[in-house]
Formats: sequence, structure tokens, C-alpha cells
Amino acid sequence: MSDKTNQQWGGRFNEPTDAFVARFTASVEFDQRMYLQDIRGSIAHAKMLTKAGVLTEAERDDIIRGLGEIRVEIERGEFEWSVALEDVHMNIEAALTKKIGITGKKLHTGRSRNDQVATDIRLYLRDEIDLILSEITRLQQGMLSVAEREADTIMPGFTHLQTAQPVTFGHHLMAWFEMLSRDFSRFEDCRERANIMPLGAAALAGTTYPIQRDFTCELLEFNAPAENSLDAVSDRDFAIEFCSASSILLMHLTRMSEELVLWTSAQFDFINLPDRFCTGSSIMPQKKNPDVPELVRGKSGRVFGHLMSLLTLMKSQPLAYNKDNQEDKEPLFDAIDTVKGCLRAFADMVPALEAKEENMREAALRGFSTATDLADYLVRKGMPFRDAHEVVGKSVAYGIEQSKDLGEMSLEELVQFSDIIEQDVFDVLTLEGSVAARDHIGGTAPNQVRAAVKRAQQKLDQRG
Amino acid sequence: MSDKTNQQWGGRFNEPTDAFVARFTASVEFDQRMYLQDIRGSIAHAKMLTKAGVLTEAERDDIIRGLGEIRVEIERGEFEWSVALEDVHMNIEAALTKKIGITGKKLHTGRSRNDQVATDIRLYLRDEIDLILSEITRLQQGMLSVAEREADTIMPGFTHLQTAQPVTFGHHLMAWFEMLSRDFSRFEDCRERANIMPLGAAALAGTTYPIQRDFTCELLEFNAPAENSLDAVSDRDFAIEFCSASSILLMHLTRMSEELVLWTSAQFDFINLPDRFCTGSSIMPQKKNPDVPELVRGKSGRVFGHLMSLLTLMKSQPLAYNKDNQEDKEPLFDAIDTVKGCLRAFADMVPALEAKEENMREAALRGFSTATDLADYLVRKGMPFRDAHEVVGKSVAYGIEQSKDLGEMSLEELVQFSDIIEQDVFDVLTLEGSVAARDHIGGTAPNQVRAAVKRAQQKLDQRG
Amino acid sequence: MSDKTNQQWGGRFNEPTDAFVARFTASVEFDQRMYLQDIRGSIAHAKMLTKAGVLTEAERDDIIRGLGEIRVEIERGEFEWSVALEDVHMNIEAALTKKIGITGKKLHTGRSRNDQVATDIRLYLRDEIDLILSEITRLQQGMLSVAEREADTIMPGFTHLQTAQPVTFGHHLMAWFEMLSRDFSRFEDCRERANIMPLGAAALAGTTYPIQRDFTCELLEFNAPAENSLDAVSDRDFAIEFCSASSILLMHLTRMSEELVLWTSAQFDFINLPDRFCTGSSIMPQKKNPDVPELVRGKSGRVFGHLMSLLTLMKSQPLAYNKDNQEDKEPLFDAIDTVKGCLRAFADMVPALEAKEENMREAALRGFSTATDLADYLVRKGMPFRDAHEVVGKSVAYGIEQSKDLGEMSLEELVQFSDIIEQDVFDVLTLEGSVAARDHIGGTAPNQVRAAVKRAQQKLDQRG
Amino acid sequence: MSDKTNQQWGGRFNEPTDAFVARFTASVEFDQRMYLQDIRGSIAHAKMLTKAGVLTEAERDDIIRGLGEIRVEIERGEFEWSVALEDVHMNIEAALTKKIGITGKKLHTGRSRNDQVATDIRLYLRDEIDLILSEITRLQQGMLSVAEREADTIMPGFTHLQTAQPVTFGHHLMAWFEMLSRDFSRFEDCRERANIMPLGAAALAGTTYPIQRDFTCELLEFNAPAENSLDAVSDRDFAIEFCSASSILLMHLTRMSEELVLWTSAQFDFINLPDRFCTGSSIMPQKKNPDVPELVRGKSGRVFGHLMSLLTLMKSQPLAYNKDNQEDKEPLFDAIDTVKGCLRAFADMVPALEAKEENMREAALRGFSTATDLADYLVRKGMPFRDAHEVVGKSVAYGIEQSKDLGEMSLEELVQFSDIIEQDVFDVLTLEGSVAARDHIGGTAPNQVRAAVKRAQQKLDQRG
Repeated sequence: MSDKTNQQWGGRFNEPTDAFVARFTASVEFDQRMYLQDIRGSIAHAKMLTKAGVLTEAERDDIIRGLGEIRVEIERGEFEWSVALEDVHMNIEAALTKKIGITGKKLHTGRSRNDQVATDIRLYLRDEIDLILSEITRLQQGMLSVAEREADTIMPGFTHLQTAQPVTFGHHLMAWFEMLSRDFSRFEDCRERANIMPLGAAALAGTTYPIQRDFTCELLEFNAPAENSLDAVSDRDFAIEFCSASSILLMHLTRMSEELVLWTSAQFDFINLPDRFCTGSSIMPQKKNPDVPELVRGKSGRVFGHLMSLLTLMKSQPLAYNKDNQEDKEPLFDAIDTVKGCLRAFADMVPALEAKEENMREAALRGFSTATDLADYLVRKGMPFRDAHEVVGKSVAYGIEQSKDLGEMSLEELVQFSDIIEQDVFDVLTLEGSVAARDHIGGTAPNQVRAAVKRAQQKLDQRG
Repeated sequence: MSDKTNQQWGGRFNEPTDAFVARFTASVEFDQRMYLQDIRGSIAHAKMLTKAGVLTEAERDDIIRGLGEIRVEIERGEFEWSVALEDVHMNIEAALTKKIGITGKKLHTGRSRNDQVATDIRLYLRDEIDLILSEITRLQQGMLSVAEREADTIMPGFTHLQTAQPVTFGHHLMAWFEMLSRDFSRFEDCRERANIMPLGAAALAGTTYPIQRDFTCELLEFNAPAENSLDAVSDRDFAIEFCSASSILLMHLTRMSEELVLWTSAQFDFINLPDRFCTGSSIMPQKKNPDVPELVRGKSGRVFGHLMSLLTLMKSQPLAYNKDNQEDKEPLFDAIDTVKGCLRAFADMVPALEAKEENMREAALRGFSTATDLADYLVRKGMPFRDAHEVVGKSVAYGIEQSKDLGEMSLEELVQFSDIIEQDVFDVLTLEGSVAARDHIGGTAPNQVRAAVKRAQQKLDQRG
Repeated sequence: MSDKTNQQWGGRFNEPTDAFVARFTASVEFDQRMYLQDIRGSIAHAKMLTKAGVLTEAERDDIIRGLGEIRVEIERGEFEWSVALEDVHMNIEAALTKKIGITGKKLHTGRSRNDQVATDIRLYLRDEIDLILSEITRLQQGMLSVAEREADTIMPGFTHLQTAQPVTFGHHLMAWFEMLSRDFSRFEDCRERANIMPLGAAALAGTTYPIQRDFTCELLEFNAPAENSLDAVSDRDFAIEFCSASSILLMHLTRMSEELVLWTSAQFDFINLPDRFCTGSSIMPQKKNPDVPELVRGKSGRVFGHLMSLLTLMKSQPLAYNKDNQEDKEPLFDAIDTVKGCLRAFADMVPALEAKEENMREAALRGFSTATDLADYLVRKGMPFRDAHEVVGKSVAYGIEQSKDLGEMSLEELVQFSDIIEQDVFDVLTLEGSVAARDHIGGTAPNQVRAAVKRAQQKLDQRG
Repeated sequence: MSDKTNQQWGGRFNEPTDAFVARFTASVEFDQRMYLQDIRGSIAHAKMLTKAGVLTEAERDDIIRGLGEIRVEIERGEFEWSVALEDVHMNIEAALTKKIGITGKKLHTGRSRNDQVATDIRLYLRDEIDLILSEITRLQQGMLSVAEREADTIMPGFTHLQTAQPVTFGHHLMAWFEMLSRDFSRFEDCRERANIMPLGAAALAGTTYPIQRDFTCELLEFNAPAENSLDAVSDRDFAIEFCSASSILLMHLTRMSEELVLWTSAQFDFINLPDRFCTGSSIMPQKKNPDVPELVRGKSGRVFGHLMSLLTLMKSQPLAYNKDNQEDKEPLFDAIDTVKGCLRAFADMVPALEAKEENMREAALRGFSTATDLADYLVRKGMPFRDAHEVVGKSVAYGIEQSKDLGEMSLEELVQFSDIIEQDVFDVLTLEGSVAARDHIGGTAPNQVRAAVKRAQQKLDQRG
């Protein structure tokens, strides 16, 4: 450690860092995953310094070659990471200097770790968001294919988990699709706002070297250089916004998971989840547990937690960079990993869902799911809605008593509640009649579901 | 209560709602604030039903007139809200029916409370976001005016709350400005995604009436009708996203508040906060407390908490509407009120901040704030940066011992650390020289700050 | 406002508080609910000051009489609360002075609002915890009565929401009981730690008056005076700990709520929830929604949120009191109200749950719930467990194919999977045999459930 | 993987687990840290099974020997952990069976992974809490030693970060001590409630084997066996309660950290933090940053986040065990590690704090810190407190104008505000006089601080 103290920031210090403190404050164990972005950022910085006349072309080329070798070593697992060198940035810089000599040290001209780390993490996040966007699309594509296949499959629609009205399974899946469309759009917005370049802010106030930020910005494909140096080194909004978008996505996945768990229960038995997405029990031989949706449901907690961590982290921090900010990485990285893992599990699983159509249909036939249709029928025959509601309420009470659903009653039985009921009532009391009647944009009618699938497919196709 | 049970959804029920349960489940005490949006939505729905042939023009006109009268009564404080009628929607509908008779009941044709409440809350939120956007702009405008005024005022810039490098107070304020620009953009995105119309989703599956959703959508200035009825009645993303944007905004305000509290302390004494934003102590006669920033700092907690509430609320809810969702309103409303209150307090206060220039300057002269400039000076004279760092480190150690800042040392004293130091070193050791040298976009040089203010003003002007 | 500024802490101020700031920083609208504790604390303080020779007995009696009158006025709704007077404390003090003259002002001798508010809120919380403890006991008593009644009622036990093994409904209710026992104990611990007296800490450092804290402590039934004045005025641990205990309690209630919602669904249909705890739908005449458990489930979010609010609030606050702390009250009060409301709803509802025994039994017969019993049977006949597991696994696969549960298979069918199976296997395949065999403390055997109920009743009886 | 499927729970399954799903659902990478507790639990279980006649003594001895060997292998880093075997429990069981043959499989008789994991994690947490308790004591001991040393050192006490009244540095440290005393007590309570034995609950309903839970309970030093099997396997209260106690502890550490950061700033300059707890800057040679307190302050976020994760995790889970629960470990483990790391850093650092007494004293002399003493002086001379407050307020206003603190004014200057002021006023305006006058339990008078230290030391001594 004394070595390090002397070399890096030693002149002012009288004693070396405490060994536990050195470990406690080091980040290299978790920030080394940004090595690619660190190298990419350094190469761009070297090119800019050359353009600005700070480095020679030969120095630049040495740096680029040295960094290229380091990258290969890291990817081959041959690079030796040192906790004494604190973080990914100092590890790579030290290795570069060892490799190419004093020129390695010149790379740090006109920048500071404060703007370097802020740049790296944004590059890293941007790359990961791109992967997430395409995984969302893959999951949505799977939903579309099931939705189209099941556009006519009738199941009970629930509110309050009580049978409400018949819907189609395809329609239900398209509700999931909509949730993910909003998620996609939130991650896009997050990417846009994150894609701003801190490099050039240096420690906090900018630098006295003649840097050309627009040039680096272009090389690194950022939207723009950050407008203010103090803000650039201390802003962590992008990490919070990412965790927020991730939390909402995970919340959506818990809702789908909850339904998958319900649907695979013996009581619902609406779908079959292929064995490869389930595990059994070491003690109960009959068990086939929906592990994947359960685990995804549980993983929502960690992402909500990371969001809270980051908000807490930033609360009350004065400008500019404070060491607290080092705590931004682990929550962000774990959120990224969790989102990718859950999306992958869902994208693999959803297309493999098998609807048990008979069970769904049977369930829709129970629970008086066409009660609203009967009320609407009465209204069309001229009865005010509130009176119709009352008539149907009484029919249902009778049905509960007699264990008969509305569609199972005879015309005689129905007529005792209102004499305007006629034979044609049985058209509206069928499941097919009920769903087909909700025939407007957003409604559950099979042709509307098919139209929605078509529009959705167009949107996916446009994502490029 | 029995009355209510019979009238609203009575046919199926054998006993009235328990009195405590009725109070426990009612929402009218907090959702009545959406009366304007409820009325506006009902008028649009009535117009659409008329266009669709479900209502006559006379019926429509009765409805519009009746609702207009109700609005006036509410705004005059003459409307009698009834807990027995559960919520704002049933209260207004009941009043309308009392006023115009059976036509009032027809208004509910082709809609349900599920899509009605989802529509109202989005309309309400949209209106509130508009107010918030303009309050952010007002606060930013205030920051710009102070930043321009203080573009040359030098203060110490901090990292780790240790003196780092000199910056200008104007530059510091522009860092605040940048935070708020991202907030503005997040609220805009949130508004865009929230501005989707659930109306027409009815209870969960759409309706059998020939509704024309595009027409209602246009009347209510929504971007589009919601694509899926199940999603439309159960989606609360907009509330979560709003609380997320609000949490980040409040987090920014805690950072500014923290600084204001620091700066008004006897130890910093950088600014004066006018008396009207402070309070005193009942027991300590000398106290003048920065209550407003402290309270805003504290209010971050409630907004973070509301975000967590809403994520928790939605976790694991199966489709479609569940009663849990009624709990979306209070957190959202309180988040709105808190954001508006804090913005107003800041927008009033920030332009009134008075910089104590002498104290700021004095502080910048201490703490070796120009140490980096000395190192850069040595590098320009040909010394490798790491060696320069070492030289300056030793000068600082000497300065601590002698209680002299770098600018206070004689040339003789400086030369003992490196003999390449010459008389011209004192140019870079001045505060003015230091800030002026950081002369690139994002840097703290006064002319850069002025340019940043100009660009910022253009952005505000374009918000129209 | 100018009036206020001059009177309370005016000497040092040059301008009155801004009107909006006065409203923004006032707390009387939500802290007036502590009027009783404020008065009680003031009476104790007055008695102590008299004992210490600071007040005369006549002054003390005037104060006690005046505060008594104010209490009556408040309880009759005749007291005029003034926002200009900021909070409940200053409102009552001002009213007292108006009533009894200058002696009213003397009451504040040797104390400050900082220790006064900290004392009042602890007194208030202590009273509320006592109510909560007795409401938990009432709910637990209701669970015990149902558990005893249903000690023999067999239902499927679930893991992963898949049928696992038969349990009794009484056993299930006793699991709920255990959760609440831990909650009870947490609230007790919280009360113990909260019941420490800040009074005497004054503004932050103690007071120069000869106060006798032990005497006040005894009058107010606190466990002890706070040991350190700086800590006493700034500690809000008790509020956080209360919200933590409340969050865990609410979490438990969400688990019970989730089960109640499941059990009242058409698919499970395990229980009947009396109509008075449900509401219907304005549009779907057949609906009977389990509103109470749904709403309680949703209310968990607000309590989790308040916990997060308070942790955020306290993060990074330097000693001693800061204005941020005013934000402690609303989350705490709302958490108290929510806990009390949810407990009341549950305590009313649980004893009214009606088990549908036939449906529960029918469900337990499906799903191969006795598979573990068959495996244990084979082990007892000498087969290694892992082999037995395999045999039963194959029997289940056969059963799924044939749509037959284990108990429905003939001996011939069973023997094909292992020839050591004999006629006595049908004893272990009965539901009664299965539950009765889990006959140890904590097991589901009906006699164990009854014994658990008895032990539990003793615990409740001891609470006094 | 097919291997695994066949061996563990294969009979019912038609296809092997998907390779990604296997990784996604495995926990061995993070739960292997419980190996010691798993082995200890298994040994106790084997002893109990022997006592109950299920295992022979020879089998028991084989198991104990085999597990002992496995423990050694693990601790030597020679054990091969397999993701295919899912978790620590199956890895150890498989290794045992490989080592001692079929007897290894018999160990699982009468238990399930559900009760096994619940037992292991409680044993693990209990051990960690014991370490935490002793680290809290070490930190408190350090505080006591500094408090005693600095019992007379005067510094400004702050409210609202404004100078309020003089206090002693020892008194301030004793405020920190009090926070930690409550933390200690919360961890003790948490340990007590966590120390309940799930073993015997088996999968969810108990077991058909003649287990003797009291015996296992005694061997494992649990307080009692869990009363209800359904609750035992699904309860995770202990993890939440631990994270709650940890969050409050971390919140306290953020408050201390905030103060350390303030006090090491150039503006306050109240203490010196030895170099070994600080780091420098790669770019600014003068920097010495208080990394340890900053990082601890930042780490609060992760613990708050874990608390939220676990509450979210458990929300709405029906009984009994669900796969979601696997997500309990990482937050809990990270909370444990964070708490231990932060306590260690503080326990090392606090005794090394060096007060800069002159700077503290100087600061206390500014800011009119004895204004309350002057008011109390006037009251003792017969002036009503409110009038005294006004007089002092005016003196302060004059002092601000003249840049003179109260103690620096002449008697003539003071008398212009009230003619009852006499020469003896200067006794109360000294810092020593001010602190000495707050001479009651909890007050800042040096002798009270020394008495508090003595009482505190007795408490620590009693912890044994």
C-alpha cells in the first residue's frame, strides 16, 4: 500500500492507507466489468488529445496498441486485477504504463477519474439498454404469436379475481404486450437522457488543456457533451431512471407471473407450463412447481430495492463528486443483470405456454360471466339500465341457489324475472356472442384482437 | 346504507355493507378533487353517445347543463358529498339524476367506473403536470438570472466537501439548472405516456354499445385511445412514473437545500437568505433558521415513499382491476402537492439569494484550491504529470505546516520544490487565472458560464 | 403575520415571514391531534416547575385549570386553530396566555419546542400502540375461535400454489396466529424503547433551570429520562421502528388477504365472505367483490412507503434538531391510522369467515396431495426414500394420464409401480390418515392443532 | 442436467430443466456461505433421528464423520460446488452420499429442504448478529474513551446547522453512543425472535416420522421449536426485522458521517481524521478526502434498499413456501456484510479522531451561542421570558451590525438594551459558564458528561 500511496496521490500524506480501509473503499471487484467502455473511452480521449496537439500521433498509436493488448488479456482472463489499484481505471492505466512507458501516464492529461468513471458507466449502461430493448422485443414477439394463435380462445376475464366477463386469451396476452410497449418506450427515453458525455468535466470544473469535447463526443456516439462540469461529474440521474424503468418492468412481470402461478394451480388449471421451466420437490413426488414465474416475481423486490438505494444515495449530497457515489454501481449492475435474466426467462417461456382451452371455456361458463350481456339485452329492449341491473341481480341470486348459470336456465326461468325476455336472449348469453359484441378498438372481440396483433406487429417491425 | 346497497348493486346481496367497511372503502374524501375532470369526461362521453345514436341531443343537453350546475355548486362549496355514495363519480352521477331525472342514469351507458376513474385520474394528472412544467420553468428562469449576475463571482468548488478548485457561483447555479432540465424532460415524457384514453374499456372487456372512441379521444385531447381494455382499466404506470420523476426532482432539491443550509451556516457564510424564508426560535433569540430548504429536504422522504407505495401496490396484481388500485390516489395526490409546494418555495426563494462575495472569495483563497493549476503549470513547463503532482503535494504539505496557501508563498519558497518555477507562476495561482483557464464548453470560465446562460435562455424561450 | 414575527422570535428579524412560507412550514393542521398529550405534558411540566420552586402553587393551579378548559374547548370543536401560530404547541400556549395572562408564558420555562414536541409525539405513539396491541389481541382471539371450530376441516396445503399435502383449516389459521404473535411482540418492544422522556433536553443542550426530570418522568409514566439532550431532541428511531413493525404486520395481512381473495374466487371457492364485507359492481350485476382484503392488501404500500420516508428523512441529518424532522408526523400518523383501520376490518371479518368444507375436501382429494404419504409408506416397508420418490413419481404420471388421484386407483394399478404395496396402503392415502400422521408439535394433526389453540389461548389470557 | 432431473425429483417429469433456467434458479453461488450451519443442523438432525430410532448409532456416526470431512474440504477450498445441485444443501447431501453411501440419503428422513433452509438461515443470522453485537460494543467503547477525554472540550451545538448553544464535544459523542445503545437493543430483540427452530416443519405440514423437536432444539440452542409448520417454512420476518434494525443503524452512521465530513471541511475544521482513513486525488495534489465516512454514508442506501426488497418479496405471498423466498438470501447477506464492514471501519476510526480544540472553541465564540444564557439571566433578574427574548434579539441584531459577539460587547453596549444588565452578566456569557449551567441528567455540563460516561461504561461492562 505504501507504494500506492506514494505513487498516486502521495505527496501530501504521512501514513499509508489502512489495509482494511483500502479493501473497504476499493471498487475493482465490481467495476472491472466496464473494462471495454474504459478502453473505448481512453482511445477516444487519446485521439482527441492528438487532434488538440497534446499528444503526438506516435504516442496516440502506442496508447491504442497498448490498450488493445490489455483488452485481449482481460478477455482471455490473463489480466491481473489489483485491489491496491482501487478500480478498473487505475488498473488499466497502470498496466498501460507498464507496457508503453511514460506515454501511458500522459493519457490522463485533461481528464480526471471523476469524469472518466461517469463516462464509462454511461457507455456501459447504453450498451446494456440496447440489449434490454432487443430482449423486450423478443418477448413481445413471443406474446404476439401466442395472442394471434389464441385470438378466439375464450376464458373468464376477472376483476377482483371474481369472474367478470368472458374475454379471449389472445386479448389477455395483448394486455401484457401493452405493458411492455410502455416499458420499451421508457428505456428508450432513459437511453436518450443517459447518452450525454461527461468527459471534459475533469475533476469538477473543466480543464486548462485545450480539449475538443465535440470531437470526443462524436467518436463515442454521445448525443452531446454535458453542459456543466459540476453537474457532469456528480449526476447519477441516469442510474435512478434506469432502475425506475426496470422497477416498472419487473412490476409488470410480477403481474404476469402471478397469473401464470394461478393458471398452473390445480384450481385454475388454465395452462400447461412445459417441464423445462419447472422444478420438482425433493420430498413430494407429485410436485411440478412454476419456479420461473415465482422467482421472477420475487426478483421484483431487488430491483425496487436498488431504486430506493440510489435515491437514498443521492439524497442531500452537495456538489460535486463525493465518495458516496461509488455506491452507484452495484445496484445498477445488479438491476441490469436481473432485468436481462428475467426477460430472457420470460422470452423463452411465453411462446411455450399451452392453453388448456377446455378448462378456460368451462370456467368462463361458470360465474355468471354473461350477466352484463343480459343487462345490456334488457336495456336494448327498452329497460333503464339500473332496473336491468336489478333484474339480472335477482336472476343471479336464483342461479346461485339453483346452481345454474344464466345460459343454463330455461326461457321460463328467465321470464319470471322480466317478461320482456325472449328466445333471442340465448344469443347474447353464449360466450361467443358475448366476446364478439365488444367490437371496438381495444375490445375483446376476436377480430379486434387480430387487428391489434397486426398493428402491434407493425410497431415491432418499425423498431429496426 | 341499505338504501345504497339496493340501489347501486343490490340485487345479488342479502345484507347491507357494514358501516365501518363503507367508510373504510370509500374514497370520496380524497377523490373529490377530480370533480372537474370527472365532469369534463362525462360531457365528452355524452357527446359521443349522442353522435353514436345512444342519447338524443336533448338528453345530451340536459346532461351538460346539469353537470355545469353541479360544477358551480362544487366550486361554491355548496355541494353535499356523501360517503355513502363512495366516490366522486357516484356522487356526481347521483346529483345529476336528482337534477335531470332518468336521463342522468343513461350517462353511464357504455362505460364503467373502472374506465371512468382511469380516465379522470389521467386528465387530472395531465393538468397538474402542466402546472409543474411551468413552475420548473419559473424556477429555472430564476436560476438563470442569478447565474448571469454571478458569472464572475468566485467561490471554492468542492469534491468530498474538501476544497477542490475555484469555480464561479454562476457556474454552480448552472449545475442546478441542468438538473432541472432533465426533470423537465422527464415530466414531459411522463405526460406523453400518461395521455392515453382508457374510456371505452368499460369494466374490463369493452362494451357492446357502438361507441366511437376516437371522437371522445379528440374531445378530451388525449393522444390516442388505449389499445387494450384489460390493460386500460388496470394500468397505473403513469402514477409510478410520475412519482419517479418527482422523486428525482426532489432528490435534486435536497442537494440544493443541503448546500443552502451549509452556505447559511456560520462556518460557510456564503449567502444571505432573506428573513422571509426563515424562521426563528422560541427560545434562542439569535437564531435565523433556513426552514424552507430544510423542510424541502425533508419532504424528499414522502415522495420517495409514495414511489415505493405505488410499486408495492401494483406488485403481483392479476388482471384486471382490483380494489387495491383505489390506493393509487392518495400517494399520487400528495406527490403532486409536494412537488408543487416545493417548486413554488424554491422559485420564490432562489432569485432572492444574496451571495456574500467576499466570504466566498476568502474561502476560495484557502484550501490550496489552485494546486491543480500549479501542477498543470509544471506540466506545461515539461514535467510529467505524476512528478508535478508529487511536487505540488510537497508544497501543500509545507503550506499546511506554515499556514500559507500557495498564492501566499514567495517565489523562493516555491522554488525549493522545483527549480523550473518562475515568476509567471503567480498568474496561474490567482483565482481569476484559475477559473478563466477552464475555457471550454461546460467549463467554469466566466465567458463559458455566460454562453451557457445564453443557450439555456434560448431553451426556456422555446418551451413556449 | 407581522404580528407573529414580532411576538414569537421577532427581535432579530427585519421582515415578516412570507405568507406562502408560513403555510408551507406550519404543522398545526396535522399535529393538532396530539392536543391531549401536549396538555398532559404541560401539566406535568408545571407540576415539576412548582416542585422545583420556579412556579408558585397558584400559578401551577391556574395553568392546570386553563389547560383543562382548553381541552374541553378542543373536544367540543370550539377551539380556533391558527396557522399563524404554526403548531399545536404554540396554539395551546397562546390560548393559555390569553386565558390566564402572563403565567401562561411562564409555562415554557426550562423547556423548548424541541423537547416538547419530542415528548408529545412519544406520548401519543405510546397511547396508540396500546390500542393497536389490544386490537391485535382481538383479531388473534377471532382466529383462535375459527381455528378451534375448524381443527378437523381438511383442505389442501400448498407450496408454490401447487397442491402439496393435506392440512386442516384450523392449522392454516394458526399459521396466521403465529405471524400476529410476532407482530404483537415487536410492537411491545417498540413501545418499550419509545417510552423514554425527552423533556428536559430543552433546545438541544439542557437548561439552566433547576429541573427535576425524574419527577416529570414519573408523572408521565415514562420508563426513564433520555440520557443525552442532543440525542433526545433529534432522535426519531421510535417512528421508524413503529413503521417497521407496522410494515411487517401489513405484510402479514397482505398474505392473509391474498388467500382470502383466492379462496373467494370461483376457482377455489373455499370460503364464504359475508356480504357486509363485500361490495358489488355498478355494471356487472353478478359481482360480489372481496373489497376488504383487497383494500388491506393495497394499503401495505402506504405503510412500506412511510417506513422509507422516515429513513430517508433522517439520513445524513447532523445533530441536533433540524426542520426536516417536522416531516416525521404525517407518515407516522397515517401509519397508525392505517394499522388500526386494517386491524379493525380484519378483527371484524375473520370470525365471520365461513368454510365451505366440501369444496376444501374435494380440492384436497385432487392434486395427489397424499403422494408424500405413499412415499413414506414405501420407506416404512423398507424402500430407500429416493427410490420411493421415483415410484410415486411414476404413479403420479400415470394418474395424470388416467385422470385418477392416488386414492382412486385400485390395488392392482398401484402394484404395477411396486409390488411391496399392499391393501393397508389405502389407510395412508386417506386425507384423515394423512393429517393425523403429522402428530408432533407444530404438525397439522387435529389434536396438535387443538393443543396449539389451547397454548395460544393461554398466551392471550396472560396479556391481561 | 438430465441426470439431475432423474435423480432428484424426476419420476413425474418428461424433459430436463432448461440449462438457462437451471442457472437462473440455482442459489449455490450465494448460499454456500451457510455451509457450517447446514452441517451443524444436519448433525443435530442425525442425533435426533437416532434417539427416535430412525437411524442406528453407526449410521449417525458415519454421517457425523462424513460431514466433518466435508467441512474440512470446504474450508480448505477443495470442495467442488455444483450449480446442477442447485444449493448448499443438495451439494453437501450429494457429497455425503458419495462419501458414506446410502446412509447419506437417510439423513433427509423427516425433514425437507423447506425447513432445512429456514433452519440454516436462522442459525447463520444468529451467529452474525452475535458478531455485530460485539462490534457495536467495540465502537461504543471507542466513543466512551473519546467522550471522557473531551468532556470539557467546548464546541458550538447546532440546530438547523445554525449555532445554537455551546456544548462539549464529549456530550456530542455521548449522543452518538445513545443511538448505538438503541441499535444494540434492537439487534438483541431481533436475535431473540429469530432464534426459533423451523426444523420439523418438513415441507409444510410436519412429518409422519416420530421426530423429537425439543431434542434438536436443545442441541441447536434455539429458544423453542416453531409452533406452526406452515408458518415455519414461510416466515421471513427475521430477515426483514434484521434489515430494519440495520437500516436504523446505518441511518445513525450517516448522521455521524455527515458530521465527520462537515468537521473535516476547511470551513469547519473541527477535527483531524488520520491519513490512513482518507484517500487523495489523482489530479488535485492538495486533496485529503474523508472517504470512509462518505462511503459509509453512501452504504445506507443499499441497506434501506434491502429492507424494501424483502418487504416487497413477501407481499401477497400465500402460504406456505414459494420459490420467491429464495430471493431472501442475497439482500440479507449483503446487509450483514455491509453492517459488519461499516461498524469495523467506524470502530477503528472513532478512537483516532483528533479534536481541534482551538477551532471548536473559536467557532463557539461566534454565532451568539450564549444568547439563551443572556435571556435566562434577564429572566432571573425578573424580566418575563418573552421580553427577555426580545431584548436579546435586539442585542444580536446590533452585534451582527457591529460584527461583535455578545461576550465581546462592553457593559455600556449591553445596557442600552436593558438597564437591569450588570457586571455579573459576563459570567453567563462565557462558554464555560454556559455549559456548566446545564447541570442535570442529560445536560451538557462536563460533570454530567462524566457521569453519563460512567453509567454507560457500566452498561457495556454488563453485556458480558
